[in-house]
Amino acid sequence: MSTPAEITTHMLAHDRFSQWLGLQIDATETAYCKLHFVITDQMLNGFDVVHGGILFAAADSAFAFACNSHGILTLALNADIAFTRTAHSGDILTVEAKAIHQGGRTGVYQVDITNAAGDLIALFKGTAYRTSKPIDAQ
Amino acid sequence: MSTPAEITTHMLAHDRFSQWLGLQIDATETAYCKLHFVITDQMLNGFDVVHGGILFAAADSAFAFACNSHGILTLALNADIAFTRTAHSGDILTVEAKAIHQGGRTGVYQVDITNAAGDLIALFKGTAYRTSKPIDAQ
Amino acid sequence: MSTPAEITTHMLAHDRFSQWLGLQIDATETAYCKLHFVITDQMLNGFDVVHGGILFAAADSAFAFACNSHGILTLALNADIAFTRTAHSGDILTVEAKAIHQGGRTGVYQVDITNAAGDLIALFKGTAYRTSKPIDAQ
Amino acid sequence: MSTPAEITTHMLAHDRFSQWLGLQIDATETAYCKLHFVITDQMLNGFDVVHGGILFAAADSAFAFACNSHGILTLALNADIAFTRTAHSGDILTVEAKAIHQGGRTGVYQVDITNAAGDLIALFKGTAYRTSKPIDAQ
Repeated sequence: MSTPAEITTHMLAHDRFSQWLGLQIDATETAYCKLHFVITDQMLNGFDVVHGGILFAAADSAFAFACNSHGILTLALNADIAFTRTAHSGDILTVEAKAIHQGGRTGVYQVDITNAAGDLIALFKGTAYRTSKPIDAQ
Repeated sequence: MSTPAEITTHMLAHDRFSQWLGLQIDATETAYCKLHFVITDQMLNGFDVVHGGILFAAADSAFAFACNSHGILTLALNADIAFTRTAHSGDILTVEAKAIHQGGRTGVYQVDITNAAGDLIALFKGTAYRTSKPIDAQ
Repeated sequence: MSTPAEITTHMLAHDRFSQWLGLQIDATETAYCKLHFVITDQMLNGFDVVHGGILFAAADSAFAFACNSHGILTLALNADIAFTRTAHSGDILTVEAKAIHQGGRTGVYQVDITNAAGDLIALFKGTAYRTSKPIDAQ
Repeated sequence: MSTPAEITTHMLAHDRFSQWLGLQIDATETAYCKLHFVITDQMLNGFDVVHGGILFAAADSAFAFACNSHGILTLALNADIAFTRTAHSGDILTVEAKAIHQGGRTGVYQVDITNAAGDLIALFKGTAYRTSKPIDAQ
């Protein structure tokens, strides 16, 4: 039986795109994950602000880490994101995912992305389905 | 006055993350964009399937190209995505964005992502707000 | 074993709010439902157009009829709706729900609401979770 | 110039479906609205729990009251809702809408629906577009 922190460490070690994003885990608990990363030039779109896909991806990773912390393979079914403020190269963004609801098979998670000033950059909500397959974090 | 194709070419030329994704534009018309890209190893998550953020990002780029094709700076307010099937390294994905509704200031766009077999991988919907600022595609 | 039409008839007969809405089923097949209804004065908001909750409710009913047509109790987890055009008292709206994806346990359905002129009024997407409990349509 | 409370009172007085729902306003401030209502038998679906459309409608009304409190006609473009727990006939539900973000033209609002025990029943997020037309609350 692995702890949430062991599972997250294992997942991140195998998750190449989360590594590319430079995600740094700050805390993992059951149904919870907090991480941060830095916006680089390669993450910008044609208007010189962070690409929406980068914000979504960081939130989606935090969501995956939070909902797999139970040690059972859990998949995202659906997600939505509201973009409330832009972010720029060099900005440090904090991403915090927590369960709004976790039933036996399905869960709803919310993820906030904030900048160093505490401004909300994006608000993400994801619906997850828990399979019957344990995650081997060894 | 620039054509939709000129605007898209200009946007992609300045959009570093869309370039990183390897997006190849197949067609651009007013309120429409079709593109494709290839899943690479670096786009995978810890379960060896494409990271959800990659699918979202490709859809978000196609959405941005479609809704900026009018030549006026248009911003994504909100987006949702349903994940219906996984994709793997080497898969060629087609991304097609079209307007469901385009009013004076606001628009709703839908984006389908399909694999080479024609299976739906993800379905994206985005809400856009059109500013008053023209895009300079020179 | 009940047919999709028997299940829908049974569900509607017990669904008091769908009856209040005046939903009339036009067709039911596996993972599909088409119905129509008429906007009444009581369905209007303070701006004299149809209340968004009425559009959502009609779409949600069509979604429920479509995803329960398999004969196994299926629950909505999440839904989103884009409002593209208003509707007024007396308008006849057609609501068509179909599966975008149906896996073993989870499904994604899309619902279009159109007026008599064929204009899109709203676009709804729902994520459903199928339980193990059969529906008794006797 | 009308106060948020005057605008909400005016809107509710003309909103026939919100009246049908029995919505009772508890508080209105700029970009904020709290209300409650009681689930009646007529609001149930075929599984004897509250119809999802009722939950959406109550949230959508609170959202409309909150985002029109500025005194300028504001329209919902898109909304999503996650259903986390069922509610039954006789339950008293509290609906609280607040701005997550309010820019010059566009806003994002979140609405929580909770029961008397404080359990989350549904979580709603809406994107709004503010027109240039003042609301006449006289």
